[in-house]
Amino acid sequence: MIGSDIREGEIAVTLPEKFDAGVYFIGRIRTPWKTRSECPRNARGSDAVCTIELDKRYAPALDGVVTCTHLVVLYFMHEARRDLVVQVSRHSGRRGTFALRSPVRPNPIAMSVVKLVKVEGSTLSVVGLDCLDGTPLIDIKPYFASVDSVPDAVVGWSKSGKE
Amino acid sequence: MIGSDIREGEIAVTLPEKFDAGVYFIGRIRTPWKTRSECPRNARGSDAVCTIELDKRYAPALDGVVTCTHLVVLYFMHEARRDLVVQVSRHSGRRGTFALRSPVRPNPIAMSVVKLVKVEGSTLSVVGLDCLDGTPLIDIKPYFASVDSVPDAVVGWSKSGKE
Repeated sequence: MIGSDIREGEIAVTLPEKFDAGVYFIGRIRTPWKTRSECPRNARGSDAVCTIELDKRYAPALDGVVTCTHLVVLYFMHEARRDLVVQVSRHSGRRGTFALRSPVRPNPIAMSVVKLVKVEGSTLSVVGLDCLDGTPLIDIKPYFASVDSVPDAVVGWSKSGKE
Repeated sequence: MIGSDIREGEIAVTLPEKFDAGVYFIGRIRTPWKTRSECPRNARGSDAVCTIELDKRYAPALDGVVTCTHLVVLYFMHEARRDLVVQVSRHSGRRGTFALRSPVRPNPIAMSVVKLVKVEGSTLSVVGLDCLDGTPLIDIKPYFASVDSVPDAVVGWSKSGKE
């Protein structure tokens, strides 16, 4: 059965009845983009400086972050549906959800690698985000090139090698 | 106040009364490590092939994953406390939580970049995990070198540049 909100070739599954764990929204991400259509195609699609507004409760957790050139940011794509396991798009064709970086996934948690520009109090200025203004923040981590950087990694289905 | 379960110099905060969103455990990670002390120091600390057992419900979402040489894996460190914003360890000194990759954080979601070895049905064999056997899986994403690889990134507080 294909509803009006699912494209031909897409597959939806019934999700479990309840969640297994909870997450806190620990801040908000401020970007220039107010709608999905305004968002850049991927995180290298814009040089815009975005801001991460961390809740003041967690401000001491930023101690040492200023020494990092790059960070891993996890955020919650709270407007995305979660039940599609196969998706169809003009850009990516028909793919399994786990072969895509689409916001649509069972746990709509995005990961972006960002360049740190500035830390002021509990606000970070960064380059490399592509999400909607107001997106809830989940986590900030230091980016370690030793474990996180794989320059020769390949995504075979993607002709451009880009998202 | 420093309890018996917190080290001198560490800072705990009161977490919000309730969660803002929920996550599904979509599978389990199988590793050779049954206790925290057995786990390798970081994800490059072992060449062990680990397996990711995805729930069969989500198996169609793996379509296309086999074309990826590397994946981003998100998993839930369900045994970690969540209230420390400053942590002290012999390895890393005294640091804010967001300058660390410690499992202890408000949302104990780990991110590892892994090398894909094999896909068989709903089971993936990968190299590059360092977590406990049985760790709940949250997400699998394709690793795009174009946006995820930053070979010259620096974590200034870390002498070795390693986790």
